[in-house]
Amino acid sequence: MISIPAPALAIHGGAGALDDPGTSGLGPDAPRQEGVGRAAAAAWELLRSGGSALDAVVLAASILEDDPTFNAGTGATLTRDGHVELDASLMDGATLGAGAVACVKDVRNPILLARAVMERSGHVLLVAEGASGFAREVGIPAWPNDRLVTPHQRARFDAARGVKPPAVGGGTIGAVARDRNGHLAAATSTGGTFLKRPGRVGDSPIIGAGTYADDRLAAVSSTGHGEPIIRVTLARLVADLVGTGRSASDAAAEGIRILGARAAGQGGVIVVGPAGEAGFAFNTPAMARAWSDASGAIRTAV
Amino acid sequence: MISIPAPALAIHGGAGALDDPGTSGLGPDAPRQEGVGRAAAAAWELLRSGGSALDAVVLAASILEDDPTFNAGTGATLTRDGHVELDASLMDGATLGAGAVACVKDVRNPILLARAVMERSGHVLLVAEGASGFAREVGIPAWPNDRLVTPHQRARFDAARGVKPPAVGGGTIGAVARDRNGHLAAATSTGGTFLKRPGRVGDSPIIGAGTYADDRLAAVSSTGHGEPIIRVTLARLVADLVGTGRSASDAAAEGIRILGARAAGQGGVIVVGPAGEAGFAFNTPAMARAWSDASGAIRTAV
Repeated sequence: MISIPAPALAIHGGAGALDDPGTSGLGPDAPRQEGVGRAAAAAWELLRSGGSALDAVVLAASILEDDPTFNAGTGATLTRDGHVELDASLMDGATLGAGAVACVKDVRNPILLARAVMERSGHVLLVAEGASGFAREVGIPAWPNDRLVTPHQRARFDAARGVKPPAVGGGTIGAVARDRNGHLAAATSTGGTFLKRPGRVGDSPIIGAGTYADDRLAAVSSTGHGEPIIRVTLARLVADLVGTGRSASDAAAEGIRILGARAAGQGGVIVVGPAGEAGFAFNTPAMARAWSDASGAIRTAV
Repeated sequence: MISIPAPALAIHGGAGALDDPGTSGLGPDAPRQEGVGRAAAAAWELLRSGGSALDAVVLAASILEDDPTFNAGTGATLTRDGHVELDASLMDGATLGAGAVACVKDVRNPILLARAVMERSGHVLLVAEGASGFAREVGIPAWPNDRLVTPHQRARFDAARGVKPPAVGGGTIGAVARDRNGHLAAATSTGGTFLKRPGRVGDSPIIGAGTYADDRLAAVSSTGHGEPIIRVTLARLVADLVGTGRSASDAAAEGIRILGARAAGQGGVIVVGPAGEAGFAFNTPAMARAWSDASGAIRTAV
C-alpha cells in the first residue's frame, strides 16, 4: 500500500490587537476571521484536488491581498507620505527557490510579482523601481497606487497625522502548505507598518525572516514587528526547530518565545511541518488564522 | 586572575576567480591582498587598543569601500544601466542590533549609512530613495554616483556591453571581529553583480544571509553568488553551526559545503567564534582575506 501524504495548510491575517481598531487599525475581528477562512477554503480545495503547495500559498496570498480587510495589496496601510509600499516573498521547499519584492508601489498583487522573480528573473529579491520595471517586462500591468488605498486606510491616515504610530504593524498576511507530493511552500505579503518611513522594509520580503520553506525542515510565515523578527531570523529559526524533531506547534511556540526573549519582539508564526502537521503561535493579543486540523477540516480563529 | 578575552578579526575582499580579470573583473591578486591587509591592520590596531568589535568592522568595511580595488563603495561594479547601486549591512552581536541599506546610489560609504539605520532609525533595512532620504536627515551628504565609478569599472562596462556577465559577483567585502569585552560584530558591503538588473539585491544587506552576529553564536560575513546564499541563509547557518560546538573553521567549511550541495552556490564566508577563533572557507578559486592567528598576528592570502 502506498502512503500518500495528506495535504496541510495554515494561513494568517496578521498578529496584532484584538478587536481594537483604535490601536491596531485592524478593524473588528469578524471580517478578518471570515477573510482568512475564505482564502483557506480556496487553497484547501486546490490542495485536496492535487494542486501544489506553491500554487496553494500563492492563491491564498493573492486572495488576501485583494481583500481590503488586510494590510497587503489592496487595503495596505499608508506610509507617512500617504502612499502604499508593498513587500512580499515566497519560497518553494522542494527546490529552495525563492522570490521576493520590496518597496513596490504599482502592482496589485506583489505575491505574483515575487513568484515571477523566482521563476523568471534568476534573482531572489528585486526592490523599488527595478521591481516595477521587471513587472512590466513579464507582463504584470501597472496598477495605480491610489487603487490600492481603501477608504478605511485613507481615513485612518488622515486621522493620524502627527500621531506616533504603533510599533506593531497589523494585518500582514501569510500562508504555508504541504501538498500531496509532500512538498512544502510558504508565502508572505504586507503593506508594512502604518505611517512607516518611505523605503522601510520589514521582515515580510526577507527569506529567513518573514518566509522560509525547506521540505527537509518546515514551511514558515511570520507576522508582527518586523525588525525584531529580522534580528532572530524567525522563519529560519522555527524551521530549524522543526528540524530538530519538535512538532510544528512546539517549534512555533519556542520561536515566539525566543523572539520575545532575545529581541523584545511581538509577533506570530504559522508552520507546516514535513509530516503535514499545522502549528502556530503568537505573543500578541490576537492573530487571525485558519488551519487544517487532523481530520482534514479547516478551522479559523482570531 | 581575570581572563581578558583576546581580540580576533577576519576580513574578506570577495570570493571569485584567481588573478583573472577577464572573467571576474577582480583584477590581479596583489592589490586585493594588500587591500585586505591594510584594512585588517587598521581594525586590528583598534581592537588591540580596546575598541569595540562594532567599531572595528565598520572601520575595516569603510576602508575597503574607499579602496577602488574592491566591489563596494568606490570601485563598485556597474548595473546594466551603467550606474552603481550599493548594498551593505552590519550586526552587533551584543544586542542583536542590525542595520542595512540596499539599492543606494548616492552615498560614499553605505556601511556608515547602515550603522545610522541601526542606531538612529528604529529600523533594520531601508532601501532606494527612502534610504537616501534618511542619509540626508542624519547628515550623510549626497555623493554623486559618478564619483563611485572608477575608470577600471567604466572600461569594464564599456567592454562588456551585450556580453552575458559571470554569475558570481566578485569583490564584495566583509569583516567580522571579537573585542576585548568578548562582543562580536559583522559587516558586509557590495556593489552586487556586474551588469546586474537595476533593483536586484543580493545577500549582502540581508541579515541572516550576508551578515549575522550573535555573541552566543558567532559573527559571519558571506560573499559570492547572492541568490543561493539567501536560499540557505548562509550567515545564520554558519553561526548556528558554531553554536552546536564546531570550530569557526569547521562551521565555515560545513556552511560552504551546504551552500554547494543544497543550492549549487559558489561563495565564501569568514567567521569569528565566541572563543575568539577566526575561520574561513570558500568553494571559489580564490578569496582575498586577512585574519588574526593564534599568536595575535595578522595574516593575509588570496
